[in-house]
Amino acid sequence: MKKIGVGILGFGTVGAGVAYGLLCNKTPLAERTGIEIELRKIADLDITSDRGVAVPKEILATDTMGVINDPQIDIIVELIGGTGIARKFVLAAIEAGKPVVTANKKLLAEHGAEIYDLAAKKGVDVFFGASVGGGIPIIRALRDGLAANRIEAIHGILNGTCNYILTSMEKDGLAFDVALANAQKQGFAEADPTLDVDGFDTLHKAAILASIAYGINPDVKSLPVRGIRGVVEAEDIRYAADLGYRIKLLAIVKDTDGEIEIRVAPTLVPEDGMLASVNGVFNAALVKGDLSDETLYYGRGAGRMPTASTVIGDIADAARAIASGAGSRLAVPRTSRAVRMKAPGDIVSRHYVRLSLGDAAGSLAAAAGAFGNHGVSISAALQKGDPGKTGYATVIVLTHLAKQADIDAALDEISNLPCCGAAPRRLGIED
Amino acid sequence: MKKIGVGILGFGTVGAGVAYGLLCNKTPLAERTGIEIELRKIADLDITSDRGVAVPKEILATDTMGVINDPQIDIIVELIGGTGIARKFVLAAIEAGKPVVTANKKLLAEHGAEIYDLAAKKGVDVFFGASVGGGIPIIRALRDGLAANRIEAIHGILNGTCNYILTSMEKDGLAFDVALANAQKQGFAEADPTLDVDGFDTLHKAAILASIAYGINPDVKSLPVRGIRGVVEAEDIRYAADLGYRIKLLAIVKDTDGEIEIRVAPTLVPEDGMLASVNGVFNAALVKGDLSDETLYYGRGAGRMPTASTVIGDIADAARAIASGAGSRLAVPRTSRAVRMKAPGDIVSRHYVRLSLGDAAGSLAAAAGAFGNHGVSISAALQKGDPGKTGYATVIVLTHLAKQADIDAALDEISNLPCCGAAPRRLGIED
Repeated sequence: MKKIGVGILGFGTVGAGVAYGLLCNKTPLAERTGIEIELRKIADLDITSDRGVAVPKEILATDTMGVINDPQIDIIVELIGGTGIARKFVLAAIEAGKPVVTANKKLLAEHGAEIYDLAAKKGVDVFFGASVGGGIPIIRALRDGLAANRIEAIHGILNGTCNYILTSMEKDGLAFDVALANAQKQGFAEADPTLDVDGFDTLHKAAILASIAYGINPDVKSLPVRGIRGVVEAEDIRYAADLGYRIKLLAIVKDTDGEIEIRVAPTLVPEDGMLASVNGVFNAALVKGDLSDETLYYGRGAGRMPTASTVIGDIADAARAIASGAGSRLAVPRTSRAVRMKAPGDIVSRHYVRLSLGDAAGSLAAAAGAFGNHGVSISAALQKGDPGKTGYATVIVLTHLAKQADIDAALDEISNLPCCGAAPRRLGIED
Repeated sequence: MKKIGVGILGFGTVGAGVAYGLLCNKTPLAERTGIEIELRKIADLDITSDRGVAVPKEILATDTMGVINDPQIDIIVELIGGTGIARKFVLAAIEAGKPVVTANKKLLAEHGAEIYDLAAKKGVDVFFGASVGGGIPIIRALRDGLAANRIEAIHGILNGTCNYILTSMEKDGLAFDVALANAQKQGFAEADPTLDVDGFDTLHKAAILASIAYGINPDVKSLPVRGIRGVVEAEDIRYAADLGYRIKLLAIVKDTDGEIEIRVAPTLVPEDGMLASVNGVFNAALVKGDLSDETLYYGRGAGRMPTASTVIGDIADAARAIASGAGSRLAVPRTSRAVRMKAPGDIVSRHYVRLSLGDAAGSLAAAAGAFGNHGVSISAALQKGDPGKTGYATVIVLTHLAKQADIDAALDEISNLPCCGAAPRRLGIED
């Protein structure tokens, strides 16, 4: 049986998980791949702290460049994180002609072009399966299993923190702040939750999925993003439930005749669909291909062992390529079509709108008129709650498909109506 | 860009779908793989019938061996079906040193060992992604994405016909016969539905998944199988719903310390779990790995285009290996552990039992006593329906975990009680 040597850079949470998996599951890995995949070195500045995983002392090293250039090491696994030394070491590994496995979303987002270019020049593969969806082999599914398809749409629940918060707002009727505090107590949210709850983590992942699906390098900073903080309130979750929907923070990636849409938004999804059943910290991606139709991938989007599972899946892929005498096996997708990003105002969607309208004759008509003025057609309007105390009634409006710019204009007009109380709030609907 | 030639054997439903996909999606395939994958020949005895797909006339051939041995053809795609000439041509292609892609479940089940042995000898890969789950890349996920994991369990809804029937029994309250007739009218069930509704199709797929997960070659004929015909009645679906469950025909594959369980049975699954949301002709597999924890794969389990999607995914894999100069890349998994098949009587599960008991004092106590006599402990017992007319009450009993042999003995004893009306009926529960 051929032997392939692995070196891990970074002995943190995921690094220790990968070490555990490589050591403990060596036998099933060898049975499936026909290769003995050997963990030969782990490099970290700190090799004395207890990582909760028993590894032979002699494989621990502090000289990272020594590990990269060690002739016994065939595959480099970068789990340092960040974009400083991680970038340097990844480039050095590629320069040394060694395939790289990484879970570093930020590194790919900021230095992907540089890394892919060097990898192509050197004929080396770069694997990044764990950068989206943790333990779910979604990147591999898009790259390999669905390779035959034109990808029409991806709808992803890709941030466990947000999904945990939304699920507990829904199941326990909690306000956002309380649900966030609970998530922080449970270790499912950071002390500074901005990257998660404001949607940026999901957006980075959406961009990676779009890059595989469409062979593009989207500029993340220019993409529309809405998170759940200050956007989704407990009453929206209740009203949505009354209408047969649940609210999820979605990564939405679509291709409409070469117009690519990549965005993140809290969105109503039908309660009897698969995405509605994805609860708590679990993630999922629903992918619509022109041949496959809908397929869905579900699992744990984070965590030491699930992430390690996907990292080791990538290591196995790299090992199979080396053992079979292959050079670079994976092309970095590059589109040859004339694609362009859809302007945010042109994005078409159904909408859920929550209005606060003075409880007087004619106020609903005025609001409906504002929608009509901008070509937005209404599929349902329902009064909720008791206007008695405040003098304002809550009215939920569901629209048919409409352009973002038209919805915005209609809501702007409604905001300026004399009968309008609190500013209108809107969420998308993806049926 | 490298060019790789593909020859399709069999221009039937799936063959025409694969031809369509290769021709129409050549560009995205090339962008993703960096390879021009060219459909160069389609062999079939009948090359004049309209297949609903426009292909250049000159690529149609009747000389199958000529296609296999054509030096312009690098990959052979067997879509003839059956085990006669399909076996012959697959062996000939491997003999010619060409990787084979097939969706032929029956061929693998009956001649897998012969095919894999020759492939190993010749250093050739055999791909069979579309043999389970149609458009869902589940085989690839098990083989590659989850390669790092010890697979603890797989729960699969793998037969669209059965799931369509069960879904319409549930949603429309239909009897099995009516739901089957509807499925036949819709084209979702064969005129002779035996292979589907009696569970054999699901069992073959379960065996293939187990072979990848555990590196074993199970003897399908010795495995426990129950279908839905004569087993699931509309009232069971209603009672299960009252208890918070739905009934699905499940492929169940488990590994308990080297004791492997492979079986098919209609089973109660929790209504808030992912499997409960899989409706109609859709399929799904929930896979529990020791590192990944639960992951789920969902999509269309059959149909021309979804199946073609997975076949072409395999073609892309084969093409990548050839283009990168690799020989055989995939090992056929072979376990090195001392595994054995679990005896059917030793299989442990919770159970739903429907009893018909005389409406007299002491009859429930007698039935409960019978469970107790065989060490089966009861978690709930509920009387259903009105015994007034027949003199018999329907009682639903949910058990705690119990061995199959003990459940069988308890139900046998209950059958012989004077108070027992119709024979007891049971279904498994997987929480």
